[in-house]
Amino acid sequence: MKYFSSDNNSGAHPAVLEAVAAANQGNVASYGDDPYTREAENLVRHIFGRETRSYFIFTGTAANALILKAALRPWEGVICAETAHINTDECGAVEALGRKLYLVPQINGKITPAGCAGMLHYAGSVHNVAPKIVSITQSTEFGQLYTLEEVRALADFCRSHGLYLHMDGSRITNAAAALGIGLREASKDLGVDMLSMGGTKNGLLCGECAVFFNPAIAPDFPYFRKQGMQLGAKMRFVSAQFLAYLKNDLWRANAVQANSACALLAEKISSLPKIKITRPVEANALFARLPEKALQQLEKTHHVSVWNKTYDPLLTEIQGPEVRIMTSFNTTTREVEELAGAIEAALRS
Amino acid sequence: MKYFSSDNNSGAHPAVLEAVAAANQGNVASYGDDPYTREAENLVRHIFGRETRSYFIFTGTAANALILKAALRPWEGVICAETAHINTDECGAVEALGRKLYLVPQINGKITPAGCAGMLHYAGSVHNVAPKIVSITQSTEFGQLYTLEEVRALADFCRSHGLYLHMDGSRITNAAAALGIGLREASKDLGVDMLSMGGTKNGLLCGECAVFFNPAIAPDFPYFRKQGMQLGAKMRFVSAQFLAYLKNDLWRANAVQANSACALLAEKISSLPKIKITRPVEANALFARLPEKALQQLEKTHHVSVWNKTYDPLLTEIQGPEVRIMTSFNTTTREVEELAGAIEAALRS
Amino acid sequence: MKYFSSDNNSGAHPAVLEAVAAANQGNVASYGDDPYTREAENLVRHIFGRETRSYFIFTGTAANALILKAALRPWEGVICAETAHINTDECGAVEALGRKLYLVPQINGKITPAGCAGMLHYAGSVHNVAPKIVSITQSTEFGQLYTLEEVRALADFCRSHGLYLHMDGSRITNAAAALGIGLREASKDLGVDMLSMGGTKNGLLCGECAVFFNPAIAPDFPYFRKQGMQLGAKMRFVSAQFLAYLKNDLWRANAVQANSACALLAEKISSLPKIKITRPVEANALFARLPEKALQQLEKTHHVSVWNKTYDPLLTEIQGPEVRIMTSFNTTTREVEELAGAIEAALRS
Amino acid sequence: MKYFSSDNNSGAHPAVLEAVAAANQGNVASYGDDPYTREAENLVRHIFGRETRSYFIFTGTAANALILKAALRPWEGVICAETAHINTDECGAVEALGRKLYLVPQINGKITPAGCAGMLHYAGSVHNVAPKIVSITQSTEFGQLYTLEEVRALADFCRSHGLYLHMDGSRITNAAAALGIGLREASKDLGVDMLSMGGTKNGLLCGECAVFFNPAIAPDFPYFRKQGMQLGAKMRFVSAQFLAYLKNDLWRANAVQANSACALLAEKISSLPKIKITRPVEANALFARLPEKALQQLEKTHHVSVWNKTYDPLLTEIQGPEVRIMTSFNTTTREVEELAGAIEAALRS
Repeated sequence: MKYFSSDNNSGAHPAVLEAVAAANQGNVASYGDDPYTREAENLVRHIFGRETRSYFIFTGTAANALILKAALRPWEGVICAETAHINTDECGAVEALGRKLYLVPQINGKITPAGCAGMLHYAGSVHNVAPKIVSITQSTEFGQLYTLEEVRALADFCRSHGLYLHMDGSRITNAAAALGIGLREASKDLGVDMLSMGGTKNGLLCGECAVFFNPAIAPDFPYFRKQGMQLGAKMRFVSAQFLAYLKNDLWRANAVQANSACALLAEKISSLPKIKITRPVEANALFARLPEKALQQLEKTHHVSVWNKTYDPLLTEIQGPEVRIMTSFNTTTREVEELAGAIEAALRS
Repeated sequence: MKYFSSDNNSGAHPAVLEAVAAANQGNVASYGDDPYTREAENLVRHIFGRETRSYFIFTGTAANALILKAALRPWEGVICAETAHINTDECGAVEALGRKLYLVPQINGKITPAGCAGMLHYAGSVHNVAPKIVSITQSTEFGQLYTLEEVRALADFCRSHGLYLHMDGSRITNAAAALGIGLREASKDLGVDMLSMGGTKNGLLCGECAVFFNPAIAPDFPYFRKQGMQLGAKMRFVSAQFLAYLKNDLWRANAVQANSACALLAEKISSLPKIKITRPVEANALFARLPEKALQQLEKTHHVSVWNKTYDPLLTEIQGPEVRIMTSFNTTTREVEELAGAIEAALRS
Repeated sequence: MKYFSSDNNSGAHPAVLEAVAAANQGNVASYGDDPYTREAENLVRHIFGRETRSYFIFTGTAANALILKAALRPWEGVICAETAHINTDECGAVEALGRKLYLVPQINGKITPAGCAGMLHYAGSVHNVAPKIVSITQSTEFGQLYTLEEVRALADFCRSHGLYLHMDGSRITNAAAALGIGLREASKDLGVDMLSMGGTKNGLLCGECAVFFNPAIAPDFPYFRKQGMQLGAKMRFVSAQFLAYLKNDLWRANAVQANSACALLAEKISSLPKIKITRPVEANALFARLPEKALQQLEKTHHVSVWNKTYDPLLTEIQGPEVRIMTSFNTTTREVEELAGAIEAALRS
Repeated sequence: MKYFSSDNNSGAHPAVLEAVAAANQGNVASYGDDPYTREAENLVRHIFGRETRSYFIFTGTAANALILKAALRPWEGVICAETAHINTDECGAVEALGRKLYLVPQINGKITPAGCAGMLHYAGSVHNVAPKIVSITQSTEFGQLYTLEEVRALADFCRSHGLYLHMDGSRITNAAAALGIGLREASKDLGVDMLSMGGTKNGLLCGECAVFFNPAIAPDFPYFRKQGMQLGAKMRFVSAQFLAYLKNDLWRANAVQANSACALLAEKISSLPKIKITRPVEANALFARLPEKALQQLEKTHHVSVWNKTYDPLLTEIQGPEVRIMTSFNTTTREVEELAGAIEAALRS
C-alpha cells in the first residue's frame, strides 16, 4: 500500500535523524536548559528577529491550543474559518482549554477581514466572549495560499481592532516555498503576531514550535507549555531536529519537493476524463472528485483521504466523492508518475 | 560540567536511535495506525496480558494527568503523597484539567493504606470530591522502593473501597530491576489498574506510555490523548523506541546499570566524613546532606540537584543542604569513581 | 424610563413573594434537604412523570451549561443554532466548562434535522468532537415557536443517531401558553431529554430548574450543581418560588399575559408606516425595524433592545436598525397602548 | 425537629424580605444595571472605601472560587488551611476551575505566616504552580477568630512576598461583631485584598458579595461572574437584600444575636459532665464531644452536625464523636435553654 493521504505519512529526513544522533553526546541539562536548545532558539531569533520567543513542543495541536490559551483571557475568543484545523480536527483541544471559537465563512480555507468583521459586535459586553485573535492557516487545509496582500490585510484589520493575528503554520514552509519567500517574510513581516511553526509534516520525527513575535503577548508561555504537558525532558532531541531543519534551509528544499510533486501530479491528472480537480493546487495538497468505483479501485493500492463523501448531483460535474491527495518532502517524481498511472487505470476500470 | 542532577540528563540508548532509523522506511499511515505501533502495542500486551490497552505519548506529565483525568468523573479525586510528582513538579497539570489531589503524609515518598484511609470520609456527599484513585510512584521521588507487599496492601485497600490504583512508573524499570522482577510482576500482578510507564528517563529520546490493565477504565482514552494534545502524527517514531526498549529487556539492562552505578556511588561516599546519606538508596537516586561550602566546590564541575536548602540545626547531623544525585542508564563505573573523588575533594576543601 | 428591552426587566409576581415569605418559618435543613424542596421536586414529578429528576438553581446560563457539561463526555459536543443563547449570550460558559458547540444555520432561531445532519460526520474519530446533544430554544431567541411536529422531528432525528435533545426553556412557559398545551406536552412528550426550565423571566425573583426526563443521563448531576457553584444553602427560598409558579398554573397565567401583550402591540403597530415587523410574533418578543431617528426619539422614554444596527439598503425596506421589544407577565394593556402611542409619535417625529 | 447543624438552617430576616418586596416596583434594567444595585454598590464603597469594587452573586462557593480564579494566572495557586472550606466543602470548585490549592497545617482553622512560608519555595520555576494568594477564613470553620494582629501578620507576609490576601468571609459579620469592630476594620484595614462577604448565613435569602479592595486585581471580574454563571438577571433582588443588610448595621445585630446565643449555650453546657467543648467558642459555632449514646438521644429531637466520628481513646477525654452546633441570627435565648436542657437530658440517658 502506498500512502498519499497526508504529508504525515512520510518519515524523517536523513539529516534530521543525523542531527538527533549527533545530539546524543554525553549528559546535558534537561527540560531545555541545554546548548542544543539554546542554539535552536538563537537560530529562530536569527530568522525572525531578536525579540522573537520560541518554544519547542511535540504536536501541532499543542502549538495551536497552547498559543491561543496563553494569549487569551478566559472570556476572549478566536475568529477562524469554519474549516480551520483548530475547529475541525483537534478534538476540541481549544474548547477543552476553555476557549471559544468564532467561525466565519471561508473559500478553500481562506477568510477575509470582511468575514471577521461580522464577529466584532461580540466585543464589549459581559454577555459575550470578546474576539481577540484571528487565526489563519497557511497554507490552508485545502492546500491554498493566502497571498501576501491577503495576510497583510488581515493583519491591518487586527491592528485596527486591537486583535492579534495567529498563523497556524503547520505547513508554513510549503507556503513560503510556494511564495518564494522566507519564513519571516511569510509571517512576522506581514503582521503576524504568533506562529505555530510546523516541522513534523515536512521531515521531522516530531517537533513543532510556538513562536511569539510580539514579546508582550503571553510572556508566561513557559508555564503554559509545562502545565500543558509539552515540556520535553530531553528537549535537545527536539531542538536538534529544528537545528537541522532551519540550517541550510532544509525546510525549503523539503517543501519545494513536496510542492513540486503535487504540481506534477496535478499536471498529470488534470486532463484525465472522469476526474475533476476541485480546488486550486498551490502547495502540496490536491483535491479532486472521481467516481466512487474508480476510488474503490485506486484504494486497493493507494491510500488517499476521502474528504467529502457527498455531492450534489445538480452542482457536481463528477458524481463521486472528493478526495485529498498529499505529497511530502520525500515524494519522488517516479512515485508521482506511478500514482498518476494508478489513477488513470482506476478511472478506466 | 558533568550532569548528575537527573536521569533526564542522559541521552538515548544507541539501540533506540537505531530503531528510530529503522522505522524511517517509506510512508505509513499516520496517528498510530501503522505497523510499528501495532507491533509495540502487541508487545505491551505480550508483557502485561491480552486485555491491556496502551497509548504512546510524549511526556510523563501527560501520562499521569491524562490517565487521571480520563479515569475520574469531574467530582472524583486522587489520593497521593504530598511529595508526589503529580503534586509538586507538574505545574498543576492535574488541577488544570479540573481534578483534585488529596495529599497524605509519606516517608521517603511512600504512602500507606492507613494514610489513605484518612481521606475516605470525603466520599458520599455532594459537598466533597470523592476519592477514587490512589496514585503511588514506583520507585519514589526519593529513590525508594515499595515492596511487593506494600503495593499489594495498597491494591487491597483500593479494592475494598472501590478505588483504582495508579502507579506513576516514570521509573518503574528501575524499580523492577531493583526488585528483580518483570514489569508485569511489578505492576499488574500486584493489583495496579493503571500505569504511567516511563521510557524517556531510561534511554528513550521521548516516549512514555499510558497503560490500562483494567479495560473497563476509560475506554475512551484515545479521545483524551488527542484532545490532550499528545497524539503524535508520526507515531511510529515513538512506537519504534518502545520496540527497542521492551524487546530483549533493554529496559532492564539500562535500569540495572543506573541502579548499580548509584549503589556504587553510595558505597564510595557513605563512609566519607561530613556527608550523610539521608535516605535509603534503593534505585538510581541518592540523597545526601553536605556542607554548603563543599556543595559550592562540587558544583563547579558537577551539576547536582539541590533538593532542600534548609535544615534544622537541632535535628540535622550535617549542617548543610540536601542534594539529589541521580545516575542513569549510561553512567559508567569510571564516571561514578570520578564523581566520588570530586565529592571527597569538595568535602576536604 | 419604561423598560421593554427584556422580560427580565419585570419584577416578581406577588404570589411568588408570598410563597417566599411563607417559607420563612423556622429552621430547616439546608442545601435542599428541606420540605419545601421535596414538595417542589414532587410537583415537578407530578407534571413531567415519576422518573423526572429536577434541580433548582439560580441562573439560566447555569441550567444550560451544567446540563450540557454533565451529559457530555469531554470529547462530545452540542449542535445548536448559531443564534442560540448558549452560543451568543452566555459569555462562553459552555466552552469555559470545556465543551464544544457545533453551529448550524437557523431561521428566526429555529434549526432542523437537515441542518443538524450536516454535523454528524464529525462522529467516530478521535480527531473530532462527537456531536451528542442537539440543543434548541423554545420559544426561540427571536420569539418564535417550534411546532410540535418540528420538535418531534428533531427528537426522532436524535433518537436515530444516538443523540440527546436538550431544550433551552428559559421561555418554555411562553411557548406552552402560546401552543395551548402543558409543560410536559411541550417537552418530554415530544421526545425532549433535558429541559432548562426557566422561571426568572416569567415572574420569579431568581430561580431556574435543570430537568432530566431520561434518568440514565447524568445521574451524578447533584455533584455538577455543587461544583458548578449553584447549590443554594437556603434552597427552600428557590423551591418555594417554584411551588407558587407551578401550582395553579401561575406560569401559564403569567405567560398568557406576556404573550397577549405582545400580540396586542404587534396589532397596534403593524400597520404604522415607516416601521416593519421583521419576524413572526408568536410569543412575547417583537422584532421590528424603524428609522434611526425614530428610535432615538423613542429611546428618550422607552428602553428597547437594539438587536442589529446594520442593514442592507438593497434588501431592507426600512432603512434603520432592528430592535427587540419584549413584554412580560406584568405588562398591562394600558402599558402596551402607551408604548404603541410612543412608537407612533416617534415615527412621526 | 430543631435544627442547629448550621447557621444555614435559619431563614431570612424580616427586614430582608421587606426590602425584596420593596424592590418589586415596576420594571428596571436587568443584569445589575438598576438603581438598587447601584445603591448597594455605593453602600459597599461607603463602608470599605471609594476604590472598592463589589459584585453580588448567589453562593459562597462562587464567591470564593471566582475570586480565586479571576485573581490568578492558570499557573498560580492558593495557600490555605487543610481545613479550609474551599478545600473540604466546595466539591472541588477551585480545582474544577483549574486552580491549585497548597495546604498548610492549622489549629482550629487558623494558619500562620510560618506555615505559609513553607510553600514559598514553589515559586519561580515552570515545574511548579507559584503561590500567589493566601486564603483565610474569618471566623474559621471551627468558629474561631483570627485576632487583628494575626490577620495583619498574614497581610504583612503577603506584601513581603508579592502575594494577595483573600478572606473567606462567609461569616465575616460574626467575626466583626465578636471583635467589636466594623467590616472594614475587620478586612481591608488589616491588609486584606479580596473578601468573600457572606450574607446568606446571617439572614439573607440568597446573597453573597465578591469584594476587591485592590482595584488592580482582576478588573475583568464582571466577565468571570457572567461566565461563572452567577450574573443574576433580576439582580435588584439580591442587591436589595444587601441594602437591608448593610444599612443600619442589620448584619451586626444579627451576628451579635448568633454569637450571644452560642456563648450562652457554651456557658450552659460547659460544666455538664460527660460532654467536653473541644475548641474555643468565639463566634457562633460550638464544637463538643459527647458519648455516642447521648448523641443518638439528642438527635431524636435536635439536628446537629457530626464533625468527626472517630476519636483516639488514649487522647480523648470523652469517648465519643465531635459535633458542631451552630446558632444563627434568629436563635432565641429560649431556644438555647431548651437545647441545653435537651443536651443535659441526653447525657443523663
